[in-house]
Amino acid sequence: MHRAMTTAAIIAGLLGTNPSRAEEGQWLPEQLSELGPERLKAAGLELAAEDLWDGGPKLLRAAVSYSGCSAGFVSDQGLLATNHHCAYPALQAQSRPDRDLLKNGFVASSRDQELRALGGAEVDVLVAIEDVTERIRPAIEAAKSDADRVRVAERKMNALSVACETKHPENRCKVHEHGFGARYRLVRTFRIRDVRLAYAPPSGIGEFGGEVDNWSWPRHSGDFALLRAYVAPDGSSAVHSEENVPYRPDVHFRISPEGVGPGDFVMVAGYPGHTDRHWPAAEVQRHVEDVFPAVIDLYGEWLDLIERHARGRPDLQIQVAAISKGLANRVKNARGMLAGLKRMDLVERKRAFEARLPADLLAEAERLTKATRSTFRRDFLLESLERGPNLLAVALDAARLAREVERPDVARAPRYADRNRPALTELQSRRVRDASVQVGGPWLASVLGRLVEADLLPSSYGGSPKQRLALASRILKRTRLDDPEEVQKLFEAPDRTALEADDDPLLTLGWMVAAKAERAEAEQEAVRGGWMRIGPRYLEAVRAARAPDPIYPDANRTLRVSLARVQGYRVRDGLFATPQTTVGGQVAKHTGRAPFDLPEAVRNAAERAPRSPYADPQLEDVPVCFLSDADTTGGNSGSPVLDRRGRLVGLNFDRVWENIAGDFAYNPAWSRNISVDVRYLLWTLTDVTPAPRLLEELLDLEAR
Amino acid sequence: MHRAMTTAAIIAGLLGTNPSRAEEGQWLPEQLSELGPERLKAAGLELAAEDLWDGGPKLLRAAVSYSGCSAGFVSDQGLLATNHHCAYPALQAQSRPDRDLLKNGFVASSRDQELRALGGAEVDVLVAIEDVTERIRPAIEAAKSDADRVRVAERKMNALSVACETKHPENRCKVHEHGFGARYRLVRTFRIRDVRLAYAPPSGIGEFGGEVDNWSWPRHSGDFALLRAYVAPDGSSAVHSEENVPYRPDVHFRISPEGVGPGDFVMVAGYPGHTDRHWPAAEVQRHVEDVFPAVIDLYGEWLDLIERHARGRPDLQIQVAAISKGLANRVKNARGMLAGLKRMDLVERKRAFEARLPADLLAEAERLTKATRSTFRRDFLLESLERGPNLLAVALDAARLAREVERPDVARAPRYADRNRPALTELQSRRVRDASVQVGGPWLASVLGRLVEADLLPSSYGGSPKQRLALASRILKRTRLDDPEEVQKLFEAPDRTALEADDDPLLTLGWMVAAKAERAEAEQEAVRGGWMRIGPRYLEAVRAARAPDPIYPDANRTLRVSLARVQGYRVRDGLFATPQTTVGGQVAKHTGRAPFDLPEAVRNAAERAPRSPYADPQLEDVPVCFLSDADTTGGNSGSPVLDRRGRLVGLNFDRVWENIAGDFAYNPAWSRNISVDVRYLLWTLTDVTPAPRLLEELLDLEAR
Repeated sequence: MHRAMTTAAIIAGLLGTNPSRAEEGQWLPEQLSELGPERLKAAGLELAAEDLWDGGPKLLRAAVSYSGCSAGFVSDQGLLATNHHCAYPALQAQSRPDRDLLKNGFVASSRDQELRALGGAEVDVLVAIEDVTERIRPAIEAAKSDADRVRVAERKMNALSVACETKHPENRCKVHEHGFGARYRLVRTFRIRDVRLAYAPPSGIGEFGGEVDNWSWPRHSGDFALLRAYVAPDGSSAVHSEENVPYRPDVHFRISPEGVGPGDFVMVAGYPGHTDRHWPAAEVQRHVEDVFPAVIDLYGEWLDLIERHARGRPDLQIQVAAISKGLANRVKNARGMLAGLKRMDLVERKRAFEARLPADLLAEAERLTKATRSTFRRDFLLESLERGPNLLAVALDAARLAREVERPDVARAPRYADRNRPALTELQSRRVRDASVQVGGPWLASVLGRLVEADLLPSSYGGSPKQRLALASRILKRTRLDDPEEVQKLFEAPDRTALEADDDPLLTLGWMVAAKAERAEAEQEAVRGGWMRIGPRYLEAVRAARAPDPIYPDANRTLRVSLARVQGYRVRDGLFATPQTTVGGQVAKHTGRAPFDLPEAVRNAAERAPRSPYADPQLEDVPVCFLSDADTTGGNSGSPVLDRRGRLVGLNFDRVWENIAGDFAYNPAWSRNISVDVRYLLWTLTDVTPAPRLLEELLDLEAR
Repeated sequence: MHRAMTTAAIIAGLLGTNPSRAEEGQWLPEQLSELGPERLKAAGLELAAEDLWDGGPKLLRAAVSYSGCSAGFVSDQGLLATNHHCAYPALQAQSRPDRDLLKNGFVASSRDQELRALGGAEVDVLVAIEDVTERIRPAIEAAKSDADRVRVAERKMNALSVACETKHPENRCKVHEHGFGARYRLVRTFRIRDVRLAYAPPSGIGEFGGEVDNWSWPRHSGDFALLRAYVAPDGSSAVHSEENVPYRPDVHFRISPEGVGPGDFVMVAGYPGHTDRHWPAAEVQRHVEDVFPAVIDLYGEWLDLIERHARGRPDLQIQVAAISKGLANRVKNARGMLAGLKRMDLVERKRAFEARLPADLLAEAERLTKATRSTFRRDFLLESLERGPNLLAVALDAARLAREVERPDVARAPRYADRNRPALTELQSRRVRDASVQVGGPWLASVLGRLVEADLLPSSYGGSPKQRLALASRILKRTRLDDPEEVQKLFEAPDRTALEADDDPLLTLGWMVAAKAERAEAEQEAVRGGWMRIGPRYLEAVRAARAPDPIYPDANRTLRVSLARVQGYRVRDGLFATPQTTVGGQVAKHTGRAPFDLPEAVRNAAERAPRSPYADPQLEDVPVCFLSDADTTGGNSGSPVLDRRGRLVGLNFDRVWENIAGDFAYNPAWSRNISVDVRYLLWTLTDVTPAPRLLEELLDLEAR
């Protein structure tokens, strides 16, 4: 079963290992042409920069943003490929005890069988990008205080967005800040609001390895799913309706059943969420000493609470699955960050680099970091409540909304702007649906204790753990926020006076915390404004010190491209990660117990895998995952991975453990992302849980 | 610190990976010429078979047996290289709280500073081998019963040994059985009884990685030590005396500071203890179902007991260190065996092979296995008592000896033959020295319970755990066996009548168990005799079924040679073990806590290691350990590892985890042994704990 790898394959597995060719950088589409044709060619790309992006309908437009993830169009009928874990909330929302889409997977046998992707699933197709720095920056410079700077910028950004949406009513517009306020880009997208599930493998494939294998290599997860984007019959964006028709993208990625192998060029196109590559040493140190320990402490506790209460209750387990998955990921991530930053010795290295930066600038930055640290405990708790007990999060949003709507739309925190109201309301109904009193009681009790400790609630909410549990249970029993209609009302017609007088115990609590949160945000804004003040000068100093290496802005959920190569890495002295895994290796990991419980269909098909047309001739087996040295981060999940001719060869879904701290610095020796090989997808659709209709759609297009 | 491996080195690290050239076989020295010059040349050896062994003073005579390990002469002044863990009992015996040779290591600054290796340390230098099958086999065939067969064979073997020693009073003679009584070889050795410690690195080097890394890769233990053999001034063997002089071996291994690299030929010469390559499937199954689970159960319990009682007591810890190390190794080994046999699916594979063997032969073998299983519980416990509570073991040996001496010398179990009496007596004094009442109480109590359970003691020795503990404590308090002089008397003048009447409670207990043990052994002998009856026919059938592949006999503590190649292996899908580790990797593993507490001297020297003359140009660092596909087992510890010209390049000390079950079958994909690189030894003697005198001795010889 577990086939031996040929010597040739093992050696070939290393031929790509040339750190000097590793490509750091999450490039903006506009930067591709700035990189110059030699650099692209040297990297191995056979397309020109303008084949990928020229502002019009070129290849990169097929890479879209989907629910905090990335995805790619793979047919002219709006079919999208992304990760199983990105489709997870949608699969969860459509699951019932008698129809468990997570456990059993899902194959839509015809288009009208495709299931609505609930859970706020939206696809943003990039339309245009405009640099608007000059329309924002002067106002920031002219602001009378640091705190004011943020409000000025937000007002400007909101105004530009609104103006853009007024001009292009069919589009969504958003201004993105780059590099501590040094640059602003107005990104216009076509937002698709009717997304449907077309195909998902069973969790035994899509999540194979689960939390045990998460963030690690060797990896054998078939982490992919297929969705379809729908629009109104006239092509306009529309909410779900039976009349809707498949969206026809301008461009889509063709699939290459040839795949890629060791040493081959690949390119990852997607929407990375957040990196901190340009922070000074003091900020890295702050993360080491404050941020990651706090994440481990708070989310670790929440995870324990949730898992303890859902144990042995399959009904609850489905309800809390996505929440605990997210928390577990954050905790593991924080641990890896701490280990990785230590291994990289990044604080020291940054300090050494900073000797080349102006001292006054560093002193100012240091002051800002100090200010952030002084209120971190409170701020981290407030910021985490969004991921905390569901109904408390509803109460907080209700209170914040009631307060915010009294301000002019452009002056509000963006989350509460009118144009974001539908999403905000939708979020609440999901929260109510997923709320579980059984988990909420002890969870809310613990959060009450922490809120009192952080001086965000009066001490009457504290007391012994037993007292807090009783109080939390009372609150949850008496609140009406578990009623979707009541919540709907609060968000459709926010009313500060009514809410202030409301005696719902959870709303009362939310009101008190919301007031504190607003004040806390104002303090944080002053620090952010400070960064915006020094941002352009700071980044310019960094750029000058690093010249002639170009600088790419930190990730911020806008489209980026990373140029890379399929290659393994030296895990540690005496151990080398070879860059591909196989179905044989997947079967060898099968134990019959989750998370290594491979469906029988895979195990049966595995016997024939070496003779499949999707088998790799070097590996003599169907490949499952591969490593490359692409520069990725969270948000890149589901990113199309393209070969030298721009054909889809995989879907990015994770990074290796040694690369977690990669958010702070790219390291050619360890920066490896993990993708599921498109040949595994094709093999699964062919031999495991057959989907001939979708397969034809995917491959007919290739044949053209 | 942790230097990156060059691409060239990583790729080169794989070039030796050619399973088709892997060489299964632990060859007898006489078999080397039978293999034929083509095979030796193809393997990579540049010497002829007769350069290694021709019955006279050729190279292999420099490979010696040392205390259950192997070792090699490395100078003409009797200097021996072996493993640190082989010298461990000697180092332990010479350690005191104020002179901890384990913790601090040992460097004899001059010859008269060399410390006596206590603990029964003896070196056996091979003198001659004679095939004596024809002088034993006819008597076996003629025996009137299976039980008789064993006695007949033992008597014959003893008689031949005694005759040999009479003829060669300066030598030790022993007849070794090969292959279920199919072949007998009389091995004559020169036994050196004065062995001294010349050099040992601190445990932080010699045991670096400890039990955590034991049986695994990547490995970074500097598992080596240097001893010196001494003889009387006239060259005869003598016990320790100030007058003794260094032994001058006929031949010794020259050291190659060039070392070896990936793909290079190596050859391991040593004294492997025991393998079971030729057992039928039913015997493998018996090991899976009976033997290994019993080892895990019994030794696991003993290990717990010992560790619990020594915790926090440094005095006791030194006393029990060797015992618990041995038990831990056995438990880990048993677990690995179970996993490995399962992974190899060996029972099924052997059953398939057996379709080619005569059915009546298999039926007979099956019957013998069944007989063994029927009394296994009792027999395993009896056999384990030797490793059990020290004073109980003394009592048992005293009782057995008193019974055995009533028989003619040649009719006794060999352990109790007159010629083995000095060793038996020496063993008891070590047991008394290492006995610890604190550990002995609960340990003896547990063994009492098991003896009663196995019907080896009357139920009056049983009772509740508390009762047994009280009884055990009473026994240990009242016995006189903790007095070395009293024990000496029992073994110097064994007296059955006196002992039977002796009211020492431990001797009484020993007497009862000894009687049962004798009867049990008689039953086991009948089974062994059955194997001896069918042995030659069975092995001949196996040989015929395997032809033209030659067959090597199972390991039995006689000199063997394995032909191999330095190479890594595929640990599992997506992960490859590269075949060399470095000082940089060793330092990277340092945590400051045992077993990863590298001495400061290593960490300081590591900075300069890349510029050391012992650095490997490919690795750009001093190598620590390397992998090869040699066919080794326990007893091969300390085996000289030789290059294509017979120069010493390393010392074998372990195998990889995937290869534990290698005792049952060689597998080219996983069968890897681990050696410490001789360049690490040279580097340590140069830059870490300098020993210029020894270094000169080692290297001057090389320069000749």
